[in-house]
Amino acid sequence: MTTLQKATQQQTKSHNSHLVLKAIYDQRQISRADISRLTSLTRTTVSDLVTELQGKGLVEEIGYGQSRGGRSPILLSVIDDARHLIAIDLENDELRGAVVNLRNEIISTVSQPLRRREGDEALILVYELVDKLIATTDKPLLGIGVGTPGLVDASTKVVLRAVNLNWRGMPLGDLLQERYGLPVYVANDSQLAALAQYMFGAGKYGSNLIVVKVGTGIGAGLILDGRLFHGDGFGAGEIGHIGVVENGQQCRCGNLGCLETVATTPAILKRMHALARPVPRSVSHNPTAIADDLTLDVVQESFVAGHPAATQAVLEAGRYLGIAAANLVGTLNVHRIVFLSRLAWFGTPLLDAIRQEMIRRVLPTLTQDTEIELIDLRPEMVILGASALLMSHELGLQLSQ
Amino acid sequence: MTTLQKATQQQTKSHNSHLVLKAIYDQRQISRADISRLTSLTRTTVSDLVTELQGKGLVEEIGYGQSRGGRSPILLSVIDDARHLIAIDLENDELRGAVVNLRNEIISTVSQPLRRREGDEALILVYELVDKLIATTDKPLLGIGVGTPGLVDASTKVVLRAVNLNWRGMPLGDLLQERYGLPVYVANDSQLAALAQYMFGAGKYGSNLIVVKVGTGIGAGLILDGRLFHGDGFGAGEIGHIGVVENGQQCRCGNLGCLETVATTPAILKRMHALARPVPRSVSHNPTAIADDLTLDVVQESFVAGHPAATQAVLEAGRYLGIAAANLVGTLNVHRIVFLSRLAWFGTPLLDAIRQEMIRRVLPTLTQDTEIELIDLRPEMVILGASALLMSHELGLQLSQ
Repeated sequence: MTTLQKATQQQTKSHNSHLVLKAIYDQRQISRADISRLTSLTRTTVSDLVTELQGKGLVEEIGYGQSRGGRSPILLSVIDDARHLIAIDLENDELRGAVVNLRNEIISTVSQPLRRREGDEALILVYELVDKLIATTDKPLLGIGVGTPGLVDASTKVVLRAVNLNWRGMPLGDLLQERYGLPVYVANDSQLAALAQYMFGAGKYGSNLIVVKVGTGIGAGLILDGRLFHGDGFGAGEIGHIGVVENGQQCRCGNLGCLETVATTPAILKRMHALARPVPRSVSHNPTAIADDLTLDVVQESFVAGHPAATQAVLEAGRYLGIAAANLVGTLNVHRIVFLSRLAWFGTPLLDAIRQEMIRRVLPTLTQDTEIELIDLRPEMVILGASALLMSHELGLQLSQ
Repeated sequence: MTTLQKATQQQTKSHNSHLVLKAIYDQRQISRADISRLTSLTRTTVSDLVTELQGKGLVEEIGYGQSRGGRSPILLSVIDDARHLIAIDLENDELRGAVVNLRNEIISTVSQPLRRREGDEALILVYELVDKLIATTDKPLLGIGVGTPGLVDASTKVVLRAVNLNWRGMPLGDLLQERYGLPVYVANDSQLAALAQYMFGAGKYGSNLIVVKVGTGIGAGLILDGRLFHGDGFGAGEIGHIGVVENGQQCRCGNLGCLETVATTPAILKRMHALARPVPRSVSHNPTAIADDLTLDVVQESFVAGHPAATQAVLEAGRYLGIAAANLVGTLNVHRIVFLSRLAWFGTPLLDAIRQEMIRRVLPTLTQDTEIELIDLRPEMVILGASALLMSHELGLQLSQ
């Protein structure tokens, strides 16, 4: 038998083991016979694989089920705390991490202010964060899942570029793997937020979902046919740098008029600043300090008060997000698009601006069934996406679908 | 055992049968023992499934292979003409069809001028076309594959809308199935062209490919992770109606400034007409008849002659196609985009216009590995895509990868 054939057999065994574990996980409690029926694997194969899973401490016998005529079957269950997972989120000024269990329940959280440290200094902070997280649990660890802004090569686990950390080609996966001796998965934060949103949707999204994360940057995660789509260079969903303004402002990527120049939170602040001279008294008395003082809270205040500059700045951003939505719908004909953002605060007026612009720009039959949601970004979204990624790769367990 | 469990077992059997057939098909000639090794199915299962495939006349024994110590193994092969497939293409003024074999080789072709017939009259032409095709072969038929312009619900096989045939909600699949008693598959022409291009690429495209068909309309077919991506409403790739011109011309879809208003063949003719008053003598002596007389051949002549109106009309269209390419690359990060079009005649200048506009409008790291091809649309592309679709659904055989 060739090495290739042996490898194939090994894959088949691992695939079958994942099938069995998934059946027990999904059903919560189930007998060996029922696993065999569900998976179409023989009883002997199922028994062998269950014994292995018991040996690994992942599965336990929890009692007897209802008899169907013969002996009462022994029921099996996954031990939710059999493994703990370390999941971290590197996108903010505050690095955040959590320990979660196999049901993706958060056991403990730790955060660490970044204080503008970057490069290797930021890496040391990541180590400290992981060290602290590991210290909070005494369970065996399944691995580490990391969400980071920027481009990530998910196969080599190299962060190709993360602006906030000033990382270029940082081999984060290998470094963490070496230091902790655990499997590590690294992915883009928008992609992980999409995974988490899909998972929380628990089936409501069908097989396709696009999640657009709008914060200081803009990125999308594409769930297509039930899976995260990465693209050829792991940059699928980098819609923040699609040009939407002809000869617009220069973007940090070098091009002009990218979506990020007009629809991020900072872009809205900047736009309102430009529109609002003189600014409302409550904002600042010193005109030169306005840009620094202007926060999203102030924009919200002014928006509620009906200040035209706030209204215009927010709704303009909405229209640009609508252009992005039109591109997504016209290209992928996905019926669900979720915008995850603090901008969700602006509610219906913003959502209407997005939707109206989208409708103007795409085949009418494609938009009639398209639903757009605007949801506040929960701080743990990226963390839970990171742990879901780790769990699906290591154990074949997916919380959604 | 529940009905669901029986259904699952039936699916497993059918899946295994496809695995065995695919192994024989891909290897051209192979022994039962080698099939067992390749598929990880037991020898008994393989033998039973092979007997079944022989019974269906799909597979035959063709002699003995090399012994590996014991008896020489009997080699099996797929009979290429065991089934013939009917494939038709409804997108042109001339309806076209072909009979192909299991290797997707064209055995015979038939065409039928549409002569502006539409609705039920067009349907009768389709029947005539299929009748004629069936008359050319005496082999058992696997089914009928249809490529049509417009939106198609691939699951119900209803043509939701095809403008050239004036069809709305035409249940083409059911009608053909009823009339001919054969399995029928119906899909959008751009999607089938993408499938065919992917197949002809024979692996060169990796797992992702976008094919943009540019003719009297514009549509894309998306091969993502090795499969045709349809979207939620079967409209994935309808990029012809994404808005690219702010307050542009009215499109037949009702919106303003769609890609189709500025980058199709007719759009180029119209633009050149508008730019070229007075037009070159060779084009027409009667200014009122120019729009009708102006053909792509004339634009080509004028382009070669360096006529500024032709140059501008073609390169402008190229820049709009570049906007479309930027949206695709920024959204999907796919490294290969193929434009299939008669416009391929304009070669490098057009390709450069597309590429330069794309580069201006998308994250630089995404475009550096992106290759754009501009290829003349072969008349049989949609037909071969339609037969590939049929073959993959009915027999699990895929010519690509």
